Amino acid sequence: MSAALGTQDSPADQRSRRSGGREARGVAQATDNIQPVRAGLEGGSYGPLSENDCERIHEAVLTLLETVGFANAIPSCIEALKTAGAIYADDGRIRFPRALVLDTIKRAGRHFTLCGQDPKHDMVIQGKRVHYGTAGAAVHLVDVEKREYREARLQDIYDAARIVEGLDNIHFFQRPMVARDIADPLNMDFNTLYACVTGTSKHIGTSFTVRENVKPALELLYAIAGSEENFRARPFVSNSNAFVVPPMKFAEDACGVLEACVAGGIPILLLSVGQAGATAPAAIAGAVVQAVAEVLAGLVYVNAIKPGHPAIFGTWPFVSDLRTGAMSGGSGEQAMMTAACAQMAQFYDLPGGSPAGMTDSKLPDIQSGYEKGITNVMAGLSGLNLVYESAGMHASLLGFCLESLIIDNDMLGHCLRCVRGIEVTDEALSVDTISEVCLKGPGHYLGNEQTLRLMQTEYFYPAVGDRFSPKEWNEKGRPDIVQRAINEKKRILAERFPRHISKLLDDKLRARFGDLIQLPRSSMGG
Amino acid sequence: MSAALGTQDSPADQRSRRSGGREARGVAQATDNIQPVRAGLEGGSYGPLSENDCERIHEAVLTLLETVGFANAIPSCIEALKTAGAIYADDGRIRFPRALVLDTIKRAGRHFTLCGQDPKHDMVIQGKRVHYGTAGAAVHLVDVEKREYREARLQDIYDAARIVEGLDNIHFFQRPMVARDIADPLNMDFNTLYACVTGTSKHIGTSFTVRENVKPALELLYAIAGSEENFRARPFVSNSNAFVVPPMKFAEDACGVLEACVAGGIPILLLSVGQAGATAPAAIAGAVVQAVAEVLAGLVYVNAIKPGHPAIFGTWPFVSDLRTGAMSGGSGEQAMMTAACAQMAQFYDLPGGSPAGMTDSKLPDIQSGYEKGITNVMAGLSGLNLVYESAGMHASLLGFCLESLIIDNDMLGHCLRCVRGIEVTDEALSVDTISEVCLKGPGHYLGNEQTLRLMQTEYFYPAVGDRFSPKEWNEKGRPDIVQRAINEKKRILAERFPRHISKLLDDKLRARFGDLIQLPRSSMGG
Repeated sequence: MSAALGTQDSPADQRSRRSGGREARGVAQATDNIQPVRAGLEGGSYGPLSENDCERIHEAVLTLLETVGFANAIPSCIEALKTAGAIYADDGRIRFPRALVLDTIKRAGRHFTLCGQDPKHDMVIQGKRVHYGTAGAAVHLVDVEKREYREARLQDIYDAARIVEGLDNIHFFQRPMVARDIADPLNMDFNTLYACVTGTSKHIGTSFTVRENVKPALELLYAIAGSEENFRARPFVSNSNAFVVPPMKFAEDACGVLEACVAGGIPILLLSVGQAGATAPAAIAGAVVQAVAEVLAGLVYVNAIKPGHPAIFGTWPFVSDLRTGAMSGGSGEQAMMTAACAQMAQFYDLPGGSPAGMTDSKLPDIQSGYEKGITNVMAGLSGLNLVYESAGMHASLLGFCLESLIIDNDMLGHCLRCVRGIEVTDEALSVDTISEVCLKGPGHYLGNEQTLRLMQTEYFYPAVGDRFSPKEWNEKGRPDIVQRAINEKKRILAERFPRHISKLLDDKLRARFGDLIQLPRSSMGG
Repeated sequence: MSAALGTQDSPADQRSRRSGGREARGVAQATDNIQPVRAGLEGGSYGPLSENDCERIHEAVLTLLETVGFANAIPSCIEALKTAGAIYADDGRIRFPRALVLDTIKRAGRHFTLCGQDPKHDMVIQGKRVHYGTAGAAVHLVDVEKREYREARLQDIYDAARIVEGLDNIHFFQRPMVARDIADPLNMDFNTLYACVTGTSKHIGTSFTVRENVKPALELLYAIAGSEENFRARPFVSNSNAFVVPPMKFAEDACGVLEACVAGGIPILLLSVGQAGATAPAAIAGAVVQAVAEVLAGLVYVNAIKPGHPAIFGTWPFVSDLRTGAMSGGSGEQAMMTAACAQMAQFYDLPGGSPAGMTDSKLPDIQSGYEKGITNVMAGLSGLNLVYESAGMHASLLGFCLESLIIDNDMLGHCLRCVRGIEVTDEALSVDTISEVCLKGPGHYLGNEQTLRLMQTEYFYPAVGDRFSPKEWNEKGRPDIVQRAINEKKRILAERFPRHISKLLDDKLRARFGDLIQLPRSSMGG
């Protein structure tokens, strides 16, 4: 067997085999079909809610939208919603008749594709297809070597994007940190977008502070796409939009951004970020009810502006530690809440995106591992289309860690393997194989034809995860996984410079947009 | 809110509130009803197999038992099985007609209770009720402070038992290590049992090397119980019995032990420990088929000796890393395999026990966390009755770690919270609460009556898990979870000495059984 199966590869060996330029695309795609895991695997084998539970949540949602409605709508929002059939009352709240909500659900955009700059990273968002990615607005970068938190910088966002570009189990890149080294909001929004789109060819998510900041961003995106039509045909950036201040109030600036993004052809992640026990009910079902109501209000809003515009059902209810009131992203309660949100998106056949992987731990330690593992695998098994925050995040969204991206990529591989599930076919049931091995064969399955065949297609192998025996581990100097990730990060950041935006195009962008900050890639050519 | 909710407790604070002597039992039981998690919560919200998949596995199993059967049966086994209706053929294999298997499944013992010495730890094993516990035969103890592996000793088993005694989310204690400091097998078996039963009042699992070693163990157990009748009425020890050498061969010594334990009134954990790609098919479904076939053969055997004797459906298929052939306990494939086994136990309405939590990692690190988190939560969600290996284990069963027990107890609390699921009632849907907060109230849920009430009953709080903000964490000297567990372990081992076996009884046992090794508890009185 040893000759046939080979030995455990180093992560660098594996990476160098996996990477390769555009010329290797054909080979890579052919190989993808037999890979044990990939983007868009179908989940759905887990769900905390029964069909009846979903119906009851839906009824509660319709009641709330009709009777409580939303405060703080901006004039353009009121105008659009009134035209669509919403009712603006003397108490300053806008209410949503159930017929309007039901009609919106029926007609809303669904089953769409979130594009990458490179089409191989396109994500078809429908059914129970699962994709894992980053997200967040962490103000700190975790310095693992010094065991400390420092302010996040634009370069960190760019580095995170470059790392994600090569990690197979992280399928999209929503900007995970805030560039604290850029004070001006317009400059920050613009360069954050630039750092993301130059750092990775996977689908990007980003935010804008105010409506006015969307216009220059669109100009940049249209220029990268080659034209406005090109971008509208294949939008490779979506807008993470916290249009609601829970409970049930519009966020004025975000609504302005939403309108500008819809007009410009950017898909919207409709974010409801309530916190159970603080800005949402402490009851888990109640927090889900409020999140669903809020996102559906946003969906009515988007469709009132532009029917069918791609929007993601972004129910993001968070959990509080009720002893302190602080957010607790890594809890079991959070894991269930996220899975319940996935089920509600499926109930409406809408593209669902919710958070998992938000550990409370400050460092890539055992707590980080189990909190991320539990929340991410449950999100995947529930068939959530877009699992945000799934990699790299710490301290309940306050710290982001580049080394954790690399470690979490292994974890997400295991999660995806679980999402894929167990194949039960006559061949897989193995009656003939067992009979042969027991009655005629060697009494074991080592080197068996079935074993050799399934090795490549049925089993996921981690890149930095350690499977040495205690003896081997000891002989190799008792390696530490975090140190292995530090080394791997340094290697990637020294070697991986983006080529999907050519030097020529980048120079043009730089000539046209004077505010663009120089990032290392450009100096390398490409 | 701050006044009402208080601050984050230290683990020691929480522990001291939770512990307390027998006099506090009434209070504890009353409190248990409103605790967010407890033993025996009902799982079942996840399952990798469809009903049809289970039927197909069942059919494959019946075919294998009828056509392939088992080799290496000992004479008493052949005798019992032939009497029951099995067919012993010229090729030395004993085969099981499907009518015999189906009849055994119908009549087998089920819905029984695995008792603790203290009845508060009794586990009712039925339906999809979930219990987490330890198990294993690790030859190493993980010395976390030195980051090294050393040989496991009897004292380590005793210490593990004492730690588990006070951890609420570890419900039973199967001996997790081999006492490498006792060379004589009889002496080792006997003192291992003694270390377990004196260390904890929870249900115990243990092994015996050969048939002859069961008799003195039974004498010890009957003496502790007060009489043979008492023990038979409330057996607080079960026998972990690897009666099969996969594929499809009886293990001669273990079969002798099995017969002696059945005769003596000890419940049997029928263990089939195949390894996919080595001693079981590489196809996941096939590995499950073989495990189910093997355990059902064991069930026929037990019931042929003593109809209805309590036996646990111990399908334990393991995963190989097919690059090296080494076992990989922490993989996603393992997580699914274990959950599929839970579903097959449910398919037969038999008490299921399978492994999860067997990380490949050598230390309590991030890999340990995600591998244990993923495998344990999926086992729980699948409704597995007894999740073995769920705490403390490392290096794919080769190393056991006392500090990990303490950390894993938190992780299992989160898992149990997920097993419990989401309550969807009119009250939990919170329509009235949301309306009141939005239309009349303060616009938030802090200090809301619902929030304060649900804080104690709906949310699980970790003991050593860290939920500080980065600022607090920094001010507190950036605490490390492993160091916190080391401190907690030292505190427990210095303070917690068993009292469920009185000093008087222990002295009697010691006088009667000359081979008992002195353990620290006895010197403390009690």
